[in-house]
Amino acid sequence: MSTTPQWVMIGGEGPEMKNIIDAVEDKYRKGTGQNPEEDIEFQVLFNDFTNNGFNTLFQALPAGRRYYTAGVPGSFFGRVLPKQSFHIGVINYAFHFTSKIPKEITDRDSPLWNRDMHCTGFDEAVKKSYLDQYSADTTNLLDARAEELVPGGLMLLLGSGLRDGVKMSETAKGMVMDFIGASLNDLAQLHIYNFILNYTPLYFAEEGELRQIIKENGKFTIEAFEDIIHPYADAMRKAFELVEVKAREEFSRIQNSKPGMQYLIVLRKN
Amino acid sequence: MSTTPQWVMIGGEGPEMKNIIDAVEDKYRKGTGQNPEEDIEFQVLFNDFTNNGFNTLFQALPAGRRYYTAGVPGSFFGRVLPKQSFHIGVINYAFHFTSKIPKEITDRDSPLWNRDMHCTGFDEAVKKSYLDQYSADTTNLLDARAEELVPGGLMLLLGSGLRDGVKMSETAKGMVMDFIGASLNDLAQLHIYNFILNYTPLYFAEEGELRQIIKENGKFTIEAFEDIIHPYADAMRKAFELVEVKAREEFSRIQNSKPGMQYLIVLRKN
Repeated sequence: MSTTPQWVMIGGEGPEMKNIIDAVEDKYRKGTGQNPEEDIEFQVLFNDFTNNGFNTLFQALPAGRRYYTAGVPGSFFGRVLPKQSFHIGVINYAFHFTSKIPKEITDRDSPLWNRDMHCTGFDEAVKKSYLDQYSADTTNLLDARAEELVPGGLMLLLGSGLRDGVKMSETAKGMVMDFIGASLNDLAQLHIYNFILNYTPLYFAEEGELRQIIKENGKFTIEAFEDIIHPYADAMRKAFELVEVKAREEFSRIQNSKPGMQYLIVLRKN
Repeated sequence: MSTTPQWVMIGGEGPEMKNIIDAVEDKYRKGTGQNPEEDIEFQVLFNDFTNNGFNTLFQALPAGRRYYTAGVPGSFFGRVLPKQSFHIGVINYAFHFTSKIPKEITDRDSPLWNRDMHCTGFDEAVKKSYLDQYSADTTNLLDARAEELVPGGLMLLLGSGLRDGVKMSETAKGMVMDFIGASLNDLAQLHIYNFILNYTPLYFAEEGELRQIIKENGKFTIEAFEDIIHPYADAMRKAFELVEVKAREEFSRIQNSKPGMQYLIVLRKN
């Protein structure tokens, strides 16, 4: 390791930060017989939108942490760091975001207007519209990270997706989103809200779709692709769980839902 | 220039950022015959306390800027960045801060209790107390920056100080601070405020004192030490000017004040 390791952590601080530092130090200790705490310094760079609460993040960082820190403002679909300036990137439950709702969904003259990806009334054209948007955005994201990573650098992607052939609306999470969406739609029908409320710019991709986007981008090799049960709760999952518990009381069909997928993907820069 | 230049800018964004980028690009253009915009990327790191408004700073950055940016939280009296991780540092009107009011001034049992550095009733022991605090803090600051800078890296210090032998209370700025301090002291006497209000943790050092602290620290060589009239207004100076204009109407003695010093010091890491 010739220079100081730098990481970009896209998403919140979590236990994986400590795990990664432990792993790097352990490897260094075994490989060199030296004490890593004397030789290696870590810097963790947190990226989020410019209007994210960086001060809240800085103040919430654990005391006694073993890394220097910095906040990097800007959209992660574009460049936010200099060329070859970090070694390990972590995207923690944020790899499912798109930069916007597909235009076919927001255009009132489109046959797909106001149709949701997650709804029970599954529509192949709606799915394709979201997938196209997701592919374009994710390709930009991979291009940007490939320029910012050192050669051979790693990206760890932790997130939610779908097993191949499972529809979002068949999973417990999709049913809950469907339920919330339908409620909001009812309100919209009543002209209480006369704008689209329930369409968040995200797409939970199938494993095959993720693999294809990464392969076609060509900047990274997939070192690992694991379907995991996420070992700790992050805020978003916790929120979903709370809603799921509530909804489960009401919808017995959720008991027959298909499993989603919690993935860990490890990419190595080519 | 073997790696991406990184800067730490301690204080606010200002025209000097553009000046420095222009100077580096110009040097590169002349030295290599290459177009710097294709080859060099800049990253500006802004350091301030953790509770500083980083989001306000990020949102105020000029559109079309030619650098990547990050916010680095933490006190600049200690380490905030990894070893050898930046090339040029700028401390913009912040080099006069101390980490705290000297304990002799805040201790009610001390003969120097509640005595101000800037006051007309100049006292050698009070000055020494502030200078000792300033020397200790500034030595820590120089030690930290020396570890963070690449070998041969530069520090540009822009700030306010005093010419040798001039007392703070003899300058227009000191008279104004004196005036404000006296007013607050009157309030304190009336028990409206029963705590020390007018003692800010700062010390405007004399040129000789600055040179001695830097020399004794030994980590940097002074490449330039200029007494300048600062070519543009920063917020603090503007505020002082506004107060000075107001005060000048009231105190004719300010017309006979001695000049302060606006310095530019260039340090090269040994």
